[in-house]
Amino acid sequence: MCRWLAYTGAPILLEKALYGGTNSLVDQSLHSRLGAETTNGDGFGVGWYGAPDTPGVYHSTEPAWNDQNLRELAGHISSPLFFTHIRAAIGSAVQQTNCHPFRHKNWLFMHNGYLNELATIKRDLILAVDPSLYPLIKGQADTEVLFFLALTFGLEDDPPAAIERAMGFVEDVATRHGVPNAFQGTVATTDGETIWAFRYSSERKSRSLFYTTDVPTLRKLYPERELFKEFSDNARLIVSEPLGDVAGVWNEVPESTCGIIGPDGEELRAFEPKAPSAAVRVGA
Amino acid sequence: MCRWLAYTGAPILLEKALYGGTNSLVDQSLHSRLGAETTNGDGFGVGWYGAPDTPGVYHSTEPAWNDQNLRELAGHISSPLFFTHIRAAIGSAVQQTNCHPFRHKNWLFMHNGYLNELATIKRDLILAVDPSLYPLIKGQADTEVLFFLALTFGLEDDPPAAIERAMGFVEDVATRHGVPNAFQGTVATTDGETIWAFRYSSERKSRSLFYTTDVPTLRKLYPERELFKEFSDNARLIVSEPLGDVAGVWNEVPESTCGIIGPDGEELRAFEPKAPSAAVRVGA
Amino acid sequence: MCRWLAYTGAPILLEKALYGGTNSLVDQSLHSRLGAETTNGDGFGVGWYGAPDTPGVYHSTEPAWNDQNLRELAGHISSPLFFTHIRAAIGSAVQQTNCHPFRHKNWLFMHNGYLNELATIKRDLILAVDPSLYPLIKGQADTEVLFFLALTFGLEDDPPAAIERAMGFVEDVATRHGVPNAFQGTVATTDGETIWAFRYSSERKSRSLFYTTDVPTLRKLYPERELFKEFSDNARLIVSEPLGDVAGVWNEVPESTCGIIGPDGEELRAFEPKAPSAAVRVGA
Amino acid sequence: MCRWLAYTGAPILLEKALYGGTNSLVDQSLHSRLGAETTNGDGFGVGWYGAPDTPGVYHSTEPAWNDQNLRELAGHISSPLFFTHIRAAIGSAVQQTNCHPFRHKNWLFMHNGYLNELATIKRDLILAVDPSLYPLIKGQADTEVLFFLALTFGLEDDPPAAIERAMGFVEDVATRHGVPNAFQGTVATTDGETIWAFRYSSERKSRSLFYTTDVPTLRKLYPERELFKEFSDNARLIVSEPLGDVAGVWNEVPESTCGIIGPDGEELRAFEPKAPSAAVRVGA
Repeated sequence: MCRWLAYTGAPILLEKALYGGTNSLVDQSLHSRLGAETTNGDGFGVGWYGAPDTPGVYHSTEPAWNDQNLRELAGHISSPLFFTHIRAAIGSAVQQTNCHPFRHKNWLFMHNGYLNELATIKRDLILAVDPSLYPLIKGQADTEVLFFLALTFGLEDDPPAAIERAMGFVEDVATRHGVPNAFQGTVATTDGETIWAFRYSSERKSRSLFYTTDVPTLRKLYPERELFKEFSDNARLIVSEPLGDVAGVWNEVPESTCGIIGPDGEELRAFEPKAPSAAVRVGA
Repeated sequence: MCRWLAYTGAPILLEKALYGGTNSLVDQSLHSRLGAETTNGDGFGVGWYGAPDTPGVYHSTEPAWNDQNLRELAGHISSPLFFTHIRAAIGSAVQQTNCHPFRHKNWLFMHNGYLNELATIKRDLILAVDPSLYPLIKGQADTEVLFFLALTFGLEDDPPAAIERAMGFVEDVATRHGVPNAFQGTVATTDGETIWAFRYSSERKSRSLFYTTDVPTLRKLYPERELFKEFSDNARLIVSEPLGDVAGVWNEVPESTCGIIGPDGEELRAFEPKAPSAAVRVGA
Repeated sequence: MCRWLAYTGAPILLEKALYGGTNSLVDQSLHSRLGAETTNGDGFGVGWYGAPDTPGVYHSTEPAWNDQNLRELAGHISSPLFFTHIRAAIGSAVQQTNCHPFRHKNWLFMHNGYLNELATIKRDLILAVDPSLYPLIKGQADTEVLFFLALTFGLEDDPPAAIERAMGFVEDVATRHGVPNAFQGTVATTDGETIWAFRYSSERKSRSLFYTTDVPTLRKLYPERELFKEFSDNARLIVSEPLGDVAGVWNEVPESTCGIIGPDGEELRAFEPKAPSAAVRVGA
Repeated sequence: MCRWLAYTGAPILLEKALYGGTNSLVDQSLHSRLGAETTNGDGFGVGWYGAPDTPGVYHSTEPAWNDQNLRELAGHISSPLFFTHIRAAIGSAVQQTNCHPFRHKNWLFMHNGYLNELATIKRDLILAVDPSLYPLIKGQADTEVLFFLALTFGLEDDPPAAIERAMGFVEDVATRHGVPNAFQGTVATTDGETIWAFRYSSERKSRSLFYTTDVPTLRKLYPERELFKEFSDNARLIVSEPLGDVAGVWNEVPESTCGIIGPDGEELRAFEPKAPSAAVRVGA
């Protein structure tokens, strides 16, 4: 389900990361190579940071490959950090409120994967969302529920811990209902400065996730390539599947890993869900 | 918020009730005369009964007045009982899953009005929906919540009692949260044979509701009018506001009233919400 | 570009021909097996005959695979003759006015393929459309132009001759502009009683086209199969690519062939474009 | 038909001109005060200039008043010169390709009004569009035809002269066909630096058009108003109808007038259509 892409670095036109080359994200909307579903035509979304405090968000139910508005926006909006997502819907309706990335204040959140047998576990998940946050839920997508659980469990203070708790809670509830393999997928979230990306699944066979080699290294590897000179030293892409075929550009994020990239540097660290203790769970 | 129309009688093309004349329902999507909001361009829906067991439902987010598909469908679908609704959204997104009429098995449900301060009371309402029904909720509209409360409180067995309980429960919850004037509006529901229509508001100043005089009487009143000869003896329309200006055609449904029309006859009876007892409330 | 399906026979619910089984038409919207483009997600359309004089037409820009309205309509509309089309757009915008089937009075028209280098030849084609018909053109699709040329050249009187002239005229104009391989594809048109289907391309490598073996023969071939007992003796499907895998059901229409099926019987005859003489060409 | 707004000055967020206050443009989509049709819910469009050479364009068929994407884009896109348009469709379909502003290279074009009896005169108008431009026509709106006529008659070289010829040609063709009152409306066009606005109708009763008093004067008139301090000295709005009610802000453009505002200054001059001579008419 779905493909996504995140960019951080000097401001670039969105189209630089979305179109062109081999297997661009918009190409992947028509035919991706690695996704569980090869066509991701059930809508798309873009969230981008810039001058105003909160990120702008654009969602559409049109398939990305033929969408004129996306082409226009991508060709005229520059941003130093943005999330884009193309959707293959499983279960919930194709509508703008079910498009990723989801936003809350200055946070964005997107996901490739699913919560297993959502219909069985959803009510218990919703009950655990903080009552003050509950009215902000606009759609019916499993990802939106996960996002609001993470917000409930402290996403704004400690994202990795909050995601541990959110996924752990989902696995707990699923177990109680006899649902196997509760969580699948890759998740990305950001506050506009730092990006946290997660690759995890209960069955330990997760959707793919890749990040780019740093640009200075790429310039050394490929001194003749114009493309790498166009990107800033600190530019990075994190993607569901590689764009293009050039060796050495893409590095796989291992299973059960959290990647962090921000002003304080970059790291990969082990990631394991951990259901929240009663003290942390608000509103259950 | 919104305008709706229900028809029962011999099968007619939907367009007979939707287009033409003065102030047709589709005219009301552009400019209604009596509605709280005069333009109802935030989508529309049609639910119609015919040969298959369950009613067909068509929802669109396009404004009704220029929608070619609606014109086509209305010109080619005949039905002995159908519901149509044009929406002026308050609060929830304009998307197909928030369009009325809502459907569950062979039941349809629509509403003109609102549940006051839904954001404050929604979580408590959702908690009262039977857990087996909860996963079937597809949107975020207040009317859909009301429908599922009614289903929880026995709509399929005794619609007036279930609506009493649903509206009573809403008023209860609102009171507990200090929200005034909890319920506003007119509601219609049907199983494909009988229509139950309700006009009620907590503040006793409800959205308007009208029904047609029986056709034989109209033929006597207006012997020269072709229109009334085209309708069957048992044809009835129930509407938010009158279509056209002809005297004697439209009768107002009084405040706090439930109207029933079906194979067993027709009646108007007093209506008063009554919160359900603990025994009836399932899943609270 | 595109896949289409035509049905004639006793009235059936549209869904019987659109959904279910292996490689149904709606499956083909997501991933067809034989089409030049495997995904046909740029909208779809349905045109169906029934009681009113003219066929109803429903067009949507949503991809067919997830469209709830299509599912509803297909489950509640019966028809003895209908056309459905799923689109992979080449060149013209994805909008309802570019969806097939196109309609004029009681005629429907659809196409899988293209007119080569339309931008170069379109102005000359448009000039040849009868001035009285020109204002009825609502979109920018090449198929719509072809349809209006056919109408100009006498479609309502002699469909095979009109299609010969229309395709011949397109080839003529293309030749004058130095455009090769002017016409590609399969075309279907009907007046609600007879269906004319064409398989032709200037380069003699045409898009695929199949028709079903007659139902009595299929019942003899597969006496245990319920499916063939559900269809009437005179039921036929004409499709871009086979639905399902059962041997003996599907017969290929040869290159440069016109197939006719109607009250007067069925036949396959050779087909060759023939540019219209000056006397026939009105409005050039 | 329609309302539009153009802004020029220091870069501002689009939302500053589109939302807020009394009778903002988005308010006018729901209920305008002066337009021939009060609701303008048949789509909208925005064209904005910024860093890339050509303006970005965003078109949507959703009514503007509830459109989340428009709100987002307006809140996150800044521009020194932009056009916005809300549409009340007369005749042509509601689709993105019929939304204004239309664009050609670095030119934008929008219109409030209509070409009378377009169906009768359209073919002759289309024939006069230069054959090299004809393939670029994407929709069926009368305004798009007018735009391409203006391009044919030299818009890129001398806009007022080209508009004179375009409107004059339309009046000529209409006269030949016995169509009265050929042209109605206000038109705006720009190359990203200068805006040319026209108010004219064949019947000399034109749609309304207003422009703002210069900002330094407004600051003197209303020294306490924060709003005027937020705009740059050279900021100007040109609108179909005034936003807000403040005296002295809005000045009416007289009948048969062309207004020009650009780096070379501002002026109002008399405007009169003048059909092009044979030498100028290319491709007729």
